[in-house]
Amino acid sequence: MARLVLKFGGTSVADIDRIERAADKVAKEYNAGHELAVVVSAMSGVTNQLVAYCSSVSTMYDAREYDTVVSSGEQITAGLMAIALQKRGIPARSWMGWQIPIICDDIHGKSRIIEIPTEEIETRFKGDEVLVLAGFQGITSKNRIATLGRGGSDTSAVALAAALKAERCDIYTDVNGIYTTDPRIVPDARRIKQISYEEMLELASLGAKVLQNRSVEMAMKNNVSLQVLSSFEDSIGSELPGTLVTKEENIMEKPVVSGIAFSQNEAKISIIDIPDSPGIAAKIFEPISKANIIIDMIVQDISEDGKVTSITFVVPQDDAAKAGKVLGDLDILKDADIRIKDDVAKISVVGIGMRTHAGVAEKMFKTLAEKNINIDVIAASEIKISVLISQEYTELAVRALHKAYHLEEPEA
Amino acid sequence: MARLVLKFGGTSVADIDRIERAADKVAKEYNAGHELAVVVSAMSGVTNQLVAYCSSVSTMYDAREYDTVVSSGEQITAGLMAIALQKRGIPARSWMGWQIPIICDDIHGKSRIIEIPTEEIETRFKGDEVLVLAGFQGITSKNRIATLGRGGSDTSAVALAAALKAERCDIYTDVNGIYTTDPRIVPDARRIKQISYEEMLELASLGAKVLQNRSVEMAMKNNVSLQVLSSFEDSIGSELPGTLVTKEENIMEKPVVSGIAFSQNEAKISIIDIPDSPGIAAKIFEPISKANIIIDMIVQDISEDGKVTSITFVVPQDDAAKAGKVLGDLDILKDADIRIKDDVAKISVVGIGMRTHAGVAEKMFKTLAEKNINIDVIAASEIKISVLISQEYTELAVRALHKAYHLEEPEA
Repeated sequence: MARLVLKFGGTSVADIDRIERAADKVAKEYNAGHELAVVVSAMSGVTNQLVAYCSSVSTMYDAREYDTVVSSGEQITAGLMAIALQKRGIPARSWMGWQIPIICDDIHGKSRIIEIPTEEIETRFKGDEVLVLAGFQGITSKNRIATLGRGGSDTSAVALAAALKAERCDIYTDVNGIYTTDPRIVPDARRIKQISYEEMLELASLGAKVLQNRSVEMAMKNNVSLQVLSSFEDSIGSELPGTLVTKEENIMEKPVVSGIAFSQNEAKISIIDIPDSPGIAAKIFEPISKANIIIDMIVQDISEDGKVTSITFVVPQDDAAKAGKVLGDLDILKDADIRIKDDVAKISVVGIGMRTHAGVAEKMFKTLAEKNINIDVIAASEIKISVLISQEYTELAVRALHKAYHLEEPEA
Repeated sequence: MARLVLKFGGTSVADIDRIERAADKVAKEYNAGHELAVVVSAMSGVTNQLVAYCSSVSTMYDAREYDTVVSSGEQITAGLMAIALQKRGIPARSWMGWQIPIICDDIHGKSRIIEIPTEEIETRFKGDEVLVLAGFQGITSKNRIATLGRGGSDTSAVALAAALKAERCDIYTDVNGIYTTDPRIVPDARRIKQISYEEMLELASLGAKVLQNRSVEMAMKNNVSLQVLSSFEDSIGSELPGTLVTKEENIMEKPVVSGIAFSQNEAKISIIDIPDSPGIAAKIFEPISKANIIIDMIVQDISEDGKVTSITFVVPQDDAAKAGKVLGDLDILKDADIRIKDDVAKISVVGIGMRTHAGVAEKMFKTLAEKNINIDVIAASEIKISVLISQEYTELAVRALHKAYHLEEPEA
């Protein structure tokens, strides 16, 4: 007998049929004797509808009222899931954030969970009851509903798994796991059976639609193993379906490279030939950070004569114009040549094995060179090497790298 | 400055445009300096959709989960209304049943309000805040959401008005008041400006779609004046629009007859020639009551020889077959002739003035006789006379009576 948290995303509870299907999955685990907490999202489309209602009343809507409105989506699913489970003879009960309670801070619209008391849940578990929690919501110290931000139901599930010391948190979604790269670009991309939290975070661009970074970080911090799996497929045999996201020491096979991530939503900003004085980088980046723009892949040229330098960095494409304006307003850059280029792509090779295997970066550069792809910027961390290239080479680069690291081959 | 409760029904908050319109009504009262509590229903259609969801998962759905699901409709409207009011510069805040709290019993699906603590509301009123309450819902002692049954938002509004000792409870709906009879049958039916609780209850068949009897009873018990008015019309001049439902002594003009009600959802049951023994009526009606069938208009013939009698009474048409079965199963009726007739109509003349004016019944019988309409059964209370006739004469009878009592003429 294990204690499991099962989380069903919006597409997995999109309509009554799918709620029934999800209830079948829960019933299977229940009949296997497990203690279960089920976390549900809103039926897909519902949250968007509710957000649209708020926006159409006022674009400047109060976040507390927004939270009250949008949290109702999960409330509906939770009640329906409880009914569906009861129909299957399973004692189930729905719980809203304020009923558990899921205690949150009062940053409405993107609240964070502070604490989940488990005493009542433990009592219910002893009574063989299945808990159905409305995801995405909690309650503040001021007795108001707060929501956890988009994708917040994953956070609810992971936090609940941590509080209940669950053996695993199963994230049911509309894909059957995390892949070595986007299968739309590389048809023989392979499903990854096991991956470390760290790699998962670095592969965010592949997995973001499946698992929010925030919930992976929370799972890592609380040592909660996540199983990403499809609610539309049945497992065959005893092997766990989908992808297990867990801590490094739980992973049997540690491939050198786990996957190739890419992003086309980046923009490169170059500041050419500015005076190279101490603290120049700080003077440039401080106002950008203050504008809430996240900076990535910073490269500063080593100035030849010690007098001028160039700085290049990457920002999200949506923030590029804003960043350009912030920089243009700086006194120290009033004569500088600032160039923004947004037809770029960031390609990343990710793998915990890099820590112990040399030559990963070399192979990346060589592979891209063989395809005549110029590298604009390079950045590396312990388990990731990223390069910035022209956007038009994205698919070519991803395919070549996927092949170079033999990612299409089955795990050993 | 007055303290008012304003209640907006489903059609008055059917979409964002109508919520805006309703918010304009609230703003007008707020700007007049009143203390306001606003009670909202679900956007029209939403509750039906949510009920359909529950039913499609299971026809035997758990009432506690049903309550969780359907109560979300009012939650959405309350949040949107608060946003709409804030946009108008009005400090407003939404409140769910569990937040006030609206304390209810745990008869899920048709719960009754036990208590509404007002301390926090009073504090908010002092801070100039408008309270927006999600109608139709409360919280049980077991910390579960309970709903008050269909039309329950009226009950929420009246209970809140009673708890807050509000001067008036304004019920905004899609009609502009209570009429002397159904205007679809009598085009010159007149809007009633003032009516007593007792008359309103007796006119239920005219007003039921506007105001649930349960909320009228609660208003009467707590001496809350109700103003029924349209959210689609603006008042002209200083006169209160719509219909004021209030206690008799508040009513300036007391017409002899206030209105003509009718119902075609009745069935007449006759039990012919049964032995006339003491307690025979009790023996017949007890099992019918136990089957939860409501009995109306009972007439027992005076038996000529003291040996046999006949009993006729009226039940809701939907219960007629069930009542017939209950009676057929009774030992004492095993040889009796039981006749059920469902093409009947009940026509009622209602007016508090009857208490002091003679001749109302006489005029009723004479009017019907002039039109050659046979009267099957007669029943009378202090302020109402009802007759049962053949259904095909319904419109003719209503029109003739409306004219006979001069109800088309303006109130003095």
